[in-house]
Amino acid sequence: MARRSMREEILESGVELFLERGFNAAAVKDITDRAGVPKGSFYNHFESKEALGAVALERYGERLRMADLADRTVPPVERVRRHFEFLRGDQPKFSQGCMFGNFGAEIVDHSEPLRLRVKDGWGNWVQLLAEAIAQGQAEGQIRASLDPQQTARYLTSAWEGALLQARTDKSGEAFEAFFAVTFDALLA
Amino acid sequence: MARRSMREEILESGVELFLERGFNAAAVKDITDRAGVPKGSFYNHFESKEALGAVALERYGERLRMADLADRTVPPVERVRRHFEFLRGDQPKFSQGCMFGNFGAEIVDHSEPLRLRVKDGWGNWVQLLAEAIAQGQAEGQIRASLDPQQTARYLTSAWEGALLQARTDKSGEAFEAFFAVTFDALLA
Repeated sequence: MARRSMREEILESGVELFLERGFNAAAVKDITDRAGVPKGSFYNHFESKEALGAVALERYGERLRMADLADRTVPPVERVRRHFEFLRGDQPKFSQGCMFGNFGAEIVDHSEPLRLRVKDGWGNWVQLLAEAIAQGQAEGQIRASLDPQQTARYLTSAWEGALLQARTDKSGEAFEAFFAVTFDALLA
Repeated sequence: MARRSMREEILESGVELFLERGFNAAAVKDITDRAGVPKGSFYNHFESKEALGAVALERYGERLRMADLADRTVPPVERVRRHFEFLRGDQPKFSQGCMFGNFGAEIVDHSEPLRLRVKDGWGNWVQLLAEAIAQGQAEGQIRASLDPQQTARYLTSAWEGALLQARTDKSGEAFEAFFAVTFDALLA
């Protein structure tokens, strides 16, 4: 396998550290140390930590396999469940946050370009879930009285909050509550 | 009115800055600047920023009026609704987070004492909501099939996530979704 480029090493280390520590606590030097490259090399590849943040958000979004939410060959409720199961699988030790949630808590008041990227990414997530919910309603699997957009937004909120709780408790209880209430009560 | 003590000025500034910026981005110097006191005076009153964080969490908890959730003179669903309306009123410009959520995202992997305080505060919140939900079920106002503990946990997750979204979007839409889905669908 070819050795990854220095830019790629920096980007991957950035994604890891933004997930583990958030944006503010991940210093450029921490990122280059993790990547095993000299600190000065950072600025050959990224103009600023903010610029890295934008690319890292994009890379993180790709990793979340959002496209699976739009896969109409899988029944809609099952698609939504698999999506969140996949996200839970990404948190084996409850030690990482979600980059949207981490950035949402930390930087939205300080960096307008990053805020807009987080907003767009989150909005896209809500849209995909809303479409799956609407399809589930059309097929009679999800109760018709729910507003798909609001319910989708609510699910993303409940997921992000569950992540915070799981990290705080170092326990999967909040995820269990998420799955039980979402699939046995709210959508059922 | 008597002038507030220097310790009190520092504590109040700490609460404000931890809510606005989170823990990591609020430096001791920012806190003493906001309080209008010399930086050196900080350590006469608090051993460390972490020590201030612990006291600030306690102060913040008092501000949230959790005791109202246990007031049995108010019907349980109404109590839960008023509680979240009160919390929403605390976010007029979507510019502050919740200290539990902010700390949960940022510091739980770095400070065990603060993690345990966030966990306890959050657990207490869940417990009070679970009792209100159980009472609402006993009185036939909330559907009996819900598990009170899991539902309470879910509501706190959904609230914390809605806060993140409201900050990211600079809009109250996520709060509107929270109230609509919680009170018109989940608990109804």
